[in-house]
Amino acid sequence: MIPPESTIAEVGERALLRHLQARIPLGPGVVLGAGDDTAAVELGPVVLVTSDTLVEDVHFRREWTPPRLLGRKALSVNLSDIAAMSGVSRHATVSLCLPPDLAFGWVDSLYDGLLERAAETGVNLVGGNICRSAAGVVVDVTLLGEATRLLKRSGALPGDLVVVTGTLGASAEGLRLLEQGARLDEEGNLASSGVWNESAGPAVAACLRAHLDPQPPIVFARALADQGLGHAAIDVSDGLSGDLAELCRASGVSAVVDSTAVPVDPQVVQLTRARGGDALRLALHGGEDYQLLLAVPSPELAPLRELAGIWALPVTVVGQFEEGAGEVRLKSPGEIGPLPADSHDHFRASPPAGRGEGGR
Amino acid sequence: MIPPESTIAEVGERALLRHLQARIPLGPGVVLGAGDDTAAVELGPVVLVTSDTLVEDVHFRREWTPPRLLGRKALSVNLSDIAAMSGVSRHATVSLCLPPDLAFGWVDSLYDGLLERAAETGVNLVGGNICRSAAGVVVDVTLLGEATRLLKRSGALPGDLVVVTGTLGASAEGLRLLEQGARLDEEGNLASSGVWNESAGPAVAACLRAHLDPQPPIVFARALADQGLGHAAIDVSDGLSGDLAELCRASGVSAVVDSTAVPVDPQVVQLTRARGGDALRLALHGGEDYQLLLAVPSPELAPLRELAGIWALPVTVVGQFEEGAGEVRLKSPGEIGPLPADSHDHFRASPPAGRGEGGR
Repeated sequence: MIPPESTIAEVGERALLRHLQARIPLGPGVVLGAGDDTAAVELGPVVLVTSDTLVEDVHFRREWTPPRLLGRKALSVNLSDIAAMSGVSRHATVSLCLPPDLAFGWVDSLYDGLLERAAETGVNLVGGNICRSAAGVVVDVTLLGEATRLLKRSGALPGDLVVVTGTLGASAEGLRLLEQGARLDEEGNLASSGVWNESAGPAVAACLRAHLDPQPPIVFARALADQGLGHAAIDVSDGLSGDLAELCRASGVSAVVDSTAVPVDPQVVQLTRARGGDALRLALHGGEDYQLLLAVPSPELAPLRELAGIWALPVTVVGQFEEGAGEVRLKSPGEIGPLPADSHDHFRASPPAGRGEGGR
Repeated sequence: MIPPESTIAEVGERALLRHLQARIPLGPGVVLGAGDDTAAVELGPVVLVTSDTLVEDVHFRREWTPPRLLGRKALSVNLSDIAAMSGVSRHATVSLCLPPDLAFGWVDSLYDGLLERAAETGVNLVGGNICRSAAGVVVDVTLLGEATRLLKRSGALPGDLVVVTGTLGASAEGLRLLEQGARLDEEGNLASSGVWNESAGPAVAACLRAHLDPQPPIVFARALADQGLGHAAIDVSDGLSGDLAELCRASGVSAVVDSTAVPVDPQVVQLTRARGGDALRLALHGGEDYQLLLAVPSPELAPLRELAGIWALPVTVVGQFEEGAGEVRLKSPGEIGPLPADSHDHFRASPPAGRGEGGR
């Protein structure tokens, strides 16, 4: 039994690696799990692969991120990529870069979250590595999946509807709330509502959860493949404006978005109304929603809605694709103009922690 | 055309990602390459997966590491893991964490090395992601491969010979030389021999190359599977002492190493003789050799040697496995005693840059 307050320098690399490996259950399709030169898994014949990295002080701040939720999110952001390909997630490896003075209990809680989220989604952790970080924590997850049909970014056709699942803006609002001192505890319950009074508690908690523990619509996404619905998909990680621009670019089409149709998260509406912010702006550009943005031909809208209804997942038509060279325009009552991809770029400026990097 | 001296902050994340993706050729078995939500590759039915990370100021120093060679090494350390499973490397993803003030040309050179090494070894780069680093450069490669037979760490039997490929110690000596100011240029040629005079140049260059551009015996390793040779394997990344201890632990056996049989690299012998160091110590504990450590039953030694002869790869019997609980002993002329696993542990102390992390 390793005391949770021991630093990982005290525990040592091999002992930590063995401890973490021993926590990983063997799952279906795992021929050889963590602990050898490589893992060996049953997969194929078409294997999906994606990697996404969470970097301390770029994607998260340790002070406001319970490690269990960080572990969940590190897997969820990759689940979202496989979902956007309409695939089934199967096996994951985890690379951890850890500062030597980090508490062992923190790493163990991170693994709690990883293992819990893996179990929820039928994913096997099959290995990875740990090494020392010169600065903060880096969590890099590679996720492998299977696909029967690839729902690429490049399939949108003029005339297709621009469809988003779920609601948008809650994650970006959650980041603001964290900056203002609101906090979740390790279990995902509200520990502090920051500057907000008690009555706003449920809305605050919902936005914090959207940011710290996103829930991409992965079961719906894999059902899309079975039903053969949709022409193209991307996950909304950089924000609707940026990801729609990317989908248009990949497909060689343009798009018009109707501002009144955007499914702004109702909790965000409530909180921004109280503090005087712009909920629509968060929904258009906020990022890290981990919902799906789809190109759907009109005749498929009804079956798509029916399918989403099984999981009570909102499906909203926010615009339409059209002939063009990748322009995205926003139609508001009485005017229409370009919708700039105001997504976050990691390199251009020192960003707020927690914004998704999205590109791969 | 992006000027190489532009910082990546000036270039921007999406532009950099697109530039790098555009450089990647489509290879056999790639259904969907970099640039979508996930890559899709043909693989299976048994897929090998491994991840290994190179962290600035932990595994390398930027001042003495030409980025092209770093790109090559980032792939090579993973090729070594697939080789140690006797598999065939097929597809790789690359996660880069980059400080915003890094020059674009540096990243582009890193990709030169990655793409070049990938082409040499028949590997396809199929994606990855880039994000901002709060501190130094992090290069995390995940490599996927195929196997017909898994050469695990756990198969060594009492009576098997302890066999290593190649020579040992040159990489560790190379690290010392770097610390003393010796340098390779971007092409892998000697730029400075540091404290050594010209006559030592070839030995200095060989050791620097062993450290900065290791060459695991990957073709020999995959041939082992075809021939069904060997009971167990691990790659020598942490040093012979540490990796042999790990192989013994996994297999539930002990081992005795004959110090006079260890294939100390002749360049290391030459340099340590001149400066008065301990070449055997570097060969036993130095690490990052990326050679194979094998458990071989005696009757398979002759065919193994014959196979290795095709690539002029030295194969040396350094000892024998025996009944026991994971002890490793060193037999020297006139004495025998425990061989402590004096491998590097990232967390215990501030290590010299460049030591392998090895564990996964």
